Amino acid sequence: MPQFADRVAKAQRSFIREILKVTADPSVISFAGGLPNPASFPVPEIAAAASKVLYESGPSALQYSTTEGYKPLREWIANRYRTRMGMDVDAQDILITTGSQQALDLVAKIMVNAGDTVVMEKPGYLGAIQAFTIFRPSWRSVPLENDGPDLAALDKALDGAKLFYAVTSFQNPSGLSYSEEKRAHVAEILSRHKVFFLEDDPYGELRFKGTALPPVYKQRPRNSMLLGTFSKVAAPGFRLGWIVAKGEIMERLVIAKQAADLHTGSLDQMIVYQFLADNDFEAHVARISRLYGNQCRAMQAAIAQHFPKNVQVTDPEGGMFLWVTLPENLSATELLKRAVECKVAFVPGAAFFVDGTGENTLRLNFSNADEPTINEGIKRLGACIEACMTEACMTGAAACKGA
Amino acid sequence: MPQFADRVAKAQRSFIREILKVTADPSVISFAGGLPNPASFPVPEIAAAASKVLYESGPSALQYSTTEGYKPLREWIANRYRTRMGMDVDAQDILITTGSQQALDLVAKIMVNAGDTVVMEKPGYLGAIQAFTIFRPSWRSVPLENDGPDLAALDKALDGAKLFYAVTSFQNPSGLSYSEEKRAHVAEILSRHKVFFLEDDPYGELRFKGTALPPVYKQRPRNSMLLGTFSKVAAPGFRLGWIVAKGEIMERLVIAKQAADLHTGSLDQMIVYQFLADNDFEAHVARISRLYGNQCRAMQAAIAQHFPKNVQVTDPEGGMFLWVTLPENLSATELLKRAVECKVAFVPGAAFFVDGTGENTLRLNFSNADEPTINEGIKRLGACIEACMTEACMTGAAACKGA
Repeated sequence: MPQFADRVAKAQRSFIREILKVTADPSVISFAGGLPNPASFPVPEIAAAASKVLYESGPSALQYSTTEGYKPLREWIANRYRTRMGMDVDAQDILITTGSQQALDLVAKIMVNAGDTVVMEKPGYLGAIQAFTIFRPSWRSVPLENDGPDLAALDKALDGAKLFYAVTSFQNPSGLSYSEEKRAHVAEILSRHKVFFLEDDPYGELRFKGTALPPVYKQRPRNSMLLGTFSKVAAPGFRLGWIVAKGEIMERLVIAKQAADLHTGSLDQMIVYQFLADNDFEAHVARISRLYGNQCRAMQAAIAQHFPKNVQVTDPEGGMFLWVTLPENLSATELLKRAVECKVAFVPGAAFFVDGTGENTLRLNFSNADEPTINEGIKRLGACIEACMTEACMTGAAACKGA
Repeated sequence: MPQFADRVAKAQRSFIREILKVTADPSVISFAGGLPNPASFPVPEIAAAASKVLYESGPSALQYSTTEGYKPLREWIANRYRTRMGMDVDAQDILITTGSQQALDLVAKIMVNAGDTVVMEKPGYLGAIQAFTIFRPSWRSVPLENDGPDLAALDKALDGAKLFYAVTSFQNPSGLSYSEEKRAHVAEILSRHKVFFLEDDPYGELRFKGTALPPVYKQRPRNSMLLGTFSKVAAPGFRLGWIVAKGEIMERLVIAKQAADLHTGSLDQMIVYQFLADNDFEAHVARISRLYGNQCRAMQAAIAQHFPKNVQVTDPEGGMFLWVTLPENLSATELLKRAVECKVAFVPGAAFFVDGTGENTLRLNFSNADEPTINEGIKRLGACIEACMTEACMTGAAACKGA
């Protein structure tokens, strides 16, 4: 057999993906995925939009279209940045992508030579780690504190780096956000370094506590890109995301996008635009945020009741995830084996670390389960953690006796 | 500014893309694009399918789904290969891609190191040249004859090569097809070389003359991949294509696809499957083929009437393109400047050659214009060619006097 390219010679299937297969068993309560709650999908509104688009503009909705994306949708996105965040963004600064994941692939493709240094948060978003890994970077990572990155560590890590990737609001996996003060510091530090900045903001609209903060991009647009998506505020099945970028960066992104899939689906773009034009988006987003806020509080309350006291959990102001830190000697990978036997699942945190640490951490998703399910699942998981603490996470036949 | 990756340091926007912008002027008759005829889009059937999917399976049509693609759609595709071509293809051998263009990107990504030899047809498909160029191959090309590649040249070119890319039926840009005899020879030659084979078959269903032939893939599945698409038989706006591959190749493709866009749109896949399930696909494809056959014959008749006799044109049995060879001293790029002034456009052939030749060739699309428009456009273009022959393709104010 001929040889594969070096960039995938050692590639492995996603660990999370394999976990999600286990959780296809309906008796397993899964906090592992990162799925929006389907109860939040505006199904009748989308059906009405689809019907309108196909009956009124069928042939153009089904034809090839431009690489940059559907102009009215790009205008809607730019306008929302201007009115909501006071940002200087125009339709021509928006490239529609096939989900945020494609944006990560395109950015990695146009910026990263093998061996270039990419700086990640610690923990960092797994999908970005996967997209960048294909292009064989050298990794550095910067610890996240409760209000954003360790600034001294960031300053040092950026030295000679090609790119810094950050999820600044309700991060996946930690749920943590950059404070207003840290955003300003990060922008200032970035401005002192010749480095690309990729800010990913898939969850920013899903705030259920506190006040909305503009992206760091607003303060440091030069050499920066900002990602957004409709996956969490409309529906992920469309695969509709976007990149905000200007000038030469946008120029290269368009070239790479054209070679990657010509353009994102015309019908999907037109349906989502029609949905946005015909409905009250603010009210829709407020409903989702309220739902997720309730589910987050339910999970936090259940954790307070069922987890041992020496387990730490983050307190997010929005988004879809809680981040759990176990006592240092425990392994979340071992805990997962026991948990699956007890019919509850999560993602072990190690996958989110590019430096091989994080074995005692794990991610819990609260967006895709109702409150009784959250209670029952956290109860089962709490018992597993208790058992792990006393039995050093033995697996096998005796594993569930604690649950 | 930090440096872009080497792979896009010299990237340029597609020449065809720039031409298509000029042809946005509705007074220009364009044979430049590669667009299916929107009259062939089954708009009411798609609208009915979309409505059914959203009302019956709304939440799952809008949720994240698997990287491999929607199972019933993969089964439909595999079944069609089995029944139509007698091929050994199963649903698990099908990866749904975001159009064929993404398949090209994924294959290039998992197989091509910088400097690896990729063998193209001469002329070859521009979208593939663009997708591969990102990964910086070393090119070789093999001349196409009327019945397929020059076999001796192919055998020689494959020596030490990583991959051979071929469009074996109604090729873009030439309209040429591999004969049954040449398919067997190509399979035999490929089997003697340790080389990946990527067979692209976007037009195979659009046959308006002769007999359907199985892909070369059928005779040489090992180390091979076969691409297909719904862009020409349903609608391109969905961005729905697929790769047929097995074993380790499929494994790598799935990993690369996951990093590239997680999965292709769920709703799009379900709509197209519903359309296929509820309608007579054979009859639909027969209608499109008849339409394009009529338009092809209209263009050939107009060419016989309006082009100088020393201009050569291919005689395709299907697909969407005719390939024109001008006398050797003429430049199609120069001809285009004159043609645009005379309100007719095409794609100069040089873009389809990886070796810098082909200056006297051009591609004409016949799928996206009705017969009166084809007649008028070919008449204009014939006059431009005549004028070029007598005036060595001068451009400027006097350019249109021949038209």
